[in-house]
Amino acid sequence: MNSPIRRSRLEVSVLRIGHRFVRDDRVTTHIALVARALGCDRIFMNEVDKSIRSTLEEIIESWGGRYFNIEIIESWKSTIKDWKNGGGKIVHLTMYGLNIDEVIDDLRNCDKLLVVVGASKVPRELYQVSDYNVAIGNQPHSEIAALAICLDRIFNGKELTRQFDDAKLRIVPSHNEKKVLKNSGE
Amino acid sequence: MNSPIRRSRLEVSVLRIGHRFVRDDRVTTHIALVARALGCDRIFMNEVDKSIRSTLEEIIESWGGRYFNIEIIESWKSTIKDWKNGGGKIVHLTMYGLNIDEVIDDLRNCDKLLVVVGASKVPRELYQVSDYNVAIGNQPHSEIAALAICLDRIFNGKELTRQFDDAKLRIVPSHNEKKVLKNSGE
Repeated sequence: MNSPIRRSRLEVSVLRIGHRFVRDDRVTTHIALVARALGCDRIFMNEVDKSIRSTLEEIIESWGGRYFNIEIIESWKSTIKDWKNGGGKIVHLTMYGLNIDEVIDDLRNCDKLLVVVGASKVPRELYQVSDYNVAIGNQPHSEIAALAICLDRIFNGKELTRQFDDAKLRIVPSHNEKKVLKNSGE
Repeated sequence: MNSPIRRSRLEVSVLRIGHRFVRDDRVTTHIALVARALGCDRIFMNEVDKSIRSTLEEIIESWGGRYFNIEIIESWKSTIKDWKNGGGKIVHLTMYGLNIDEVIDDLRNCDKLLVVVGASKVPRELYQVSDYNVAIGNQPHSEIAALAICLDRIFNGKELTRQFDDAKLRIVPSHNEKKVLKNSGE
């Protein structure tokens, strides 16, 4: 069994900012699921619709990852300040930033990263307080896509084969069908 | 200037299936934007809300990529059949599939790939008609994330620095601000 990535040296959390009620619910749910699946420990979000938390909790209940933390925050500024005070670095994903290739070595050498993912326009101040403004391509596309590629690069693809120790359901990869094992010990 | 990926040997299109009106509009928009930004030539979709097409057309008008094709289809089965008859291969993204690492060399050696992205449950038949059922991790997360990582792997990261020749707007990557050039020749 692979050891979970959360025990590796590099700790990554996600901060979702600018969530708009209803309009952004599904996108924020995808962001949170990507964070869990691709190696993060935690997502910080402003107050969001209860359905987002319950979707995540259902996924975690079945597929594992109880350590994954959903933290509701009051202010993104305080979260960033606390993160920096704790020795962590801030990575803001934006199409205006430097190409991920230029900074990936620096990111991998950090101990603690907070990846900030905005919805629509973000406050200009965020560009200033971030240690890295990083573009996943300088084209408009999707904050979900940007987060996914960023995490895939940070963890060098290794998170895709990770196992969740506390999973009730486990997929047996197949070339042409759905195979799922149920953990009877749960 | 980089030569556009569409002129490279490998041609990639996306087929979105199972789109549900309203509920999936934003996710399908993200899928289409990711397809354009990350190196594809075309997206096939069932009839979708007009707002999706107009969002795409606005992005293309400003950021380039007029060759990018939005094709509205009647039946995914016919699209897949035509694609296969034209010598192309079908890549279905599913959490139940084989890890992308296992098939990536095969994919890169193809001439034409159709990447199929489902919303919610997909018909079982799709698993059978696909040449590759591919997992971007065997965990539930996001079809947008899966498509993004799949394309990033297929094009080996090179699509992130591509230029769109017909762009009116072009970003100058910056470590801490928004810099955009307007093409006065347009």
